[in-house]
Amino acid sequence: MRTPTTRHPAIARAGAFLACALLAAPALRAQSDVDRLITAAVQDTAAYHRLGELVDTFGSRPSGSDRLERAIDWIVAEMKKDGLENVHTEPVMVPHWERGAESATLIEPRRAPLAMLGLGRSVGTPPSGITAPVLVVRDFADLRAHASEARGKIVLYDYPFRHDLPPFEAYEDAVRYRVLGADSAASVGAVAALVRSVASFSIRNPHTGSMAYGSAAKRIPAAALSVEDAEMLHRMQDRGQRIVVNLTMGARTLPDAPSRNVIAELRGSEKPDEVVVLGGHIDSWDVGQGAMDDGGGSVAAWEVLRLMKQLGIRPKRTVRVVLWTNEESGLAGGRAYRDAHRSELPKHVLALESDNGVFAPRGIRVTGPDSVVAWMRRLVAPLARIGADSVFRGDPEADVSPIVALGVPGAALEIDGSRYFWYHHSEGDTLDKLDPYEMARCVATMGAVALGAAND
Amino acid sequence: MRTPTTRHPAIARAGAFLACALLAAPALRAQSDVDRLITAAVQDTAAYHRLGELVDTFGSRPSGSDRLERAIDWIVAEMKKDGLENVHTEPVMVPHWERGAESATLIEPRRAPLAMLGLGRSVGTPPSGITAPVLVVRDFADLRAHASEARGKIVLYDYPFRHDLPPFEAYEDAVRYRVLGADSAASVGAVAALVRSVASFSIRNPHTGSMAYGSAAKRIPAAALSVEDAEMLHRMQDRGQRIVVNLTMGARTLPDAPSRNVIAELRGSEKPDEVVVLGGHIDSWDVGQGAMDDGGGSVAAWEVLRLMKQLGIRPKRTVRVVLWTNEESGLAGGRAYRDAHRSELPKHVLALESDNGVFAPRGIRVTGPDSVVAWMRRLVAPLARIGADSVFRGDPEADVSPIVALGVPGAALEIDGSRYFWYHHSEGDTLDKLDPYEMARCVATMGAVALGAAND
Repeated sequence: MRTPTTRHPAIARAGAFLACALLAAPALRAQSDVDRLITAAVQDTAAYHRLGELVDTFGSRPSGSDRLERAIDWIVAEMKKDGLENVHTEPVMVPHWERGAESATLIEPRRAPLAMLGLGRSVGTPPSGITAPVLVVRDFADLRAHASEARGKIVLYDYPFRHDLPPFEAYEDAVRYRVLGADSAASVGAVAALVRSVASFSIRNPHTGSMAYGSAAKRIPAAALSVEDAEMLHRMQDRGQRIVVNLTMGARTLPDAPSRNVIAELRGSEKPDEVVVLGGHIDSWDVGQGAMDDGGGSVAAWEVLRLMKQLGIRPKRTVRVVLWTNEESGLAGGRAYRDAHRSELPKHVLALESDNGVFAPRGIRVTGPDSVVAWMRRLVAPLARIGADSVFRGDPEADVSPIVALGVPGAALEIDGSRYFWYHHSEGDTLDKLDPYEMARCVATMGAVALGAAND
Repeated sequence: MRTPTTRHPAIARAGAFLACALLAAPALRAQSDVDRLITAAVQDTAAYHRLGELVDTFGSRPSGSDRLERAIDWIVAEMKKDGLENVHTEPVMVPHWERGAESATLIEPRRAPLAMLGLGRSVGTPPSGITAPVLVVRDFADLRAHASEARGKIVLYDYPFRHDLPPFEAYEDAVRYRVLGADSAASVGAVAALVRSVASFSIRNPHTGSMAYGSAAKRIPAAALSVEDAEMLHRMQDRGQRIVVNLTMGARTLPDAPSRNVIAELRGSEKPDEVVVLGGHIDSWDVGQGAMDDGGGSVAAWEVLRLMKQLGIRPKRTVRVVLWTNEESGLAGGRAYRDAHRSELPKHVLALESDNGVFAPRGIRVTGPDSVVAWMRRLVAPLARIGADSVFRGDPEADVSPIVALGVPGAALEIDGSRYFWYHHSEGDTLDKLDPYEMARCVATMGAVALGAAND
């Protein structure tokens, strides 16, 4: 999914340089604006401090929460203070799932609390919880092999994160158990499902995320255990011990709630109806601060526009920041943007999102035909001096996927993801996991590509 | 404190080899036993699996708890099954502090739970807790500079872990705030003390540990916040925000409780009244599994004796494993051993402890005159093949310090401590943080030194 389009960055750079020299001569002033934007961005830690203010003031921002809506109000007010244009929100109805009080307690072979987080969209349990023996399985095949033992039990999937894959591929591989595990367990008679947290490292921090019910007749509660607890229960089973757990979850799904996508622009000087979109999602899970996922991407995109305004840079096409709501538990924001702007989409020249954390940027991942890849090579060329000029092919981020599906070229910020799944969807997703100067380089990367695309 | 006695391990190895060749010729059979022990130890992950059984079965083992005493019963029974000699326990009265229910809640500028752990020996709060404004200080000097603002407040020490020092020195530097912070805060009128966890990395896991009351008239409750929460409160103060926290702690100190040191031996064939002690402490804090601190050191020492027995190795002097109780909150086990064996101490030739985690071993740290250092160089020489033959000078571990103070040569297992303070005294101290083959090399290192000292 994320194959680099060249194995030799030096060759790519040389090619990009030639392409620039041959093709971009008329765009010298614009190129100079891109360079000014990069230079200003990498020297400025304002984005990091603004992100700190956002996440410290409002905390995590789950869909349906008052905190999310107050954060949106604050962002809109700040964007107006920044002098951005056409600052407004667009209404979105979003799913509203609430965690409630929850716990998992080992009852046998000894009584002890387990580190857990209920999964988004899961149903709850009765008030006294579900107490049942545990069947630990490694994967779906192992569940099928032990299907006759699953009835009346809590099934725990202890599927490890594969360290032989790149982190985001290993996530896609393991997240199947989080998303689909409850349904498969219910289909063989289990009364609840537990899943080892989808995490590449753990200090006993469980990781939540969304799950889905499918074809199984019964909807059973589902929760993540910390890696440590999943491994412990597995060891106990390997020792032949009987394991009993009480799972108590107050989770419930309320009626859909009103939320909003946030939009701000700098209007294009020559082709204002042609649009470059860049953004992130402003909602988060309800644990930690949602700083990495995806306050950072949201504020970095916003910072691009603020810096352009501050530097007096006026793009030829309109540069539009979109902060989508409800990425985590429904993608309602991404779909609402598509629906509200459907007639405009043919004039969307690029949709760029950051949603893998604003860690050290490596370049851009693109979705589209070879011509888009070649175009992106030109756009990233000025980023060689900060080492963020690689171009990768791969899927777009979730929020832009509805418009990419309708033909808009998609791009994503590609970063050093080696620690992303240490913190993702857990209490560990806090401001301190990011670095001010890495985030600044992300601003530079998004800015250079967005402005380059707007002026190209 | 932990200065290597040479900067060039290759030179040290060459010297050790010469020393061996010149001095150890009569000990060829014994040397061969040391080599057999090393070879057997590094190929055997039994210690890791026994540690897993210990920590999974009993969990954490705080002083005064039933879990600690049941773990001791199990160890004694297992040691007898192993065929060890003189397996017995020795009574120790230990402090009995209980955490109770506890929480820290941010009230202003927004309501949110804070990740906290009360500190060992702290008094509790009234049932509804203490609600007060927070004064964040960097260190004791900062507290003195703002002493007039501290009255009636909760003082938070946000003193960072120094990454410019070796980890165990950085710990000694920062732990002053955990141990003494409450007393200093009380002396300027604070109503409670919070301390940034003493940790070199955090995924929002608070770290507990013992504190002490000193000269201040009033004993105020004390707790650790996670690094993330301490930094957030500090940022809020820097933004000029008023911070209010509710701290609720059910902590209480009960009457001293009976516990036991565990002892097992292989009696010496030639000088049975001369003793080499090796061990770790079997108690832990009440969070995580106490796998690293210090289940690992305890089981590694025990494994040395089990392997010697299995291999039919009979030492010339007695090799005695001691698993001390109550290292964490009083050192009663270490003092009780000293008192019970006082008359024997002149015949203790070495006391070796592992209490920094059974991570990749580097060698041995010694306390004593130059002659002891030179002797240790000879003892570690056979460990060159596993890279654990460095000799360092420094303080002994806590449990052996009472007998080292009376002249017994002290030695400690020196390991790669780069991640120790990620997990120490937190929920993250679990089996999975250790590696079976690193632990096996620790067994080899302790075994080679203990047997070498017994046969020398």
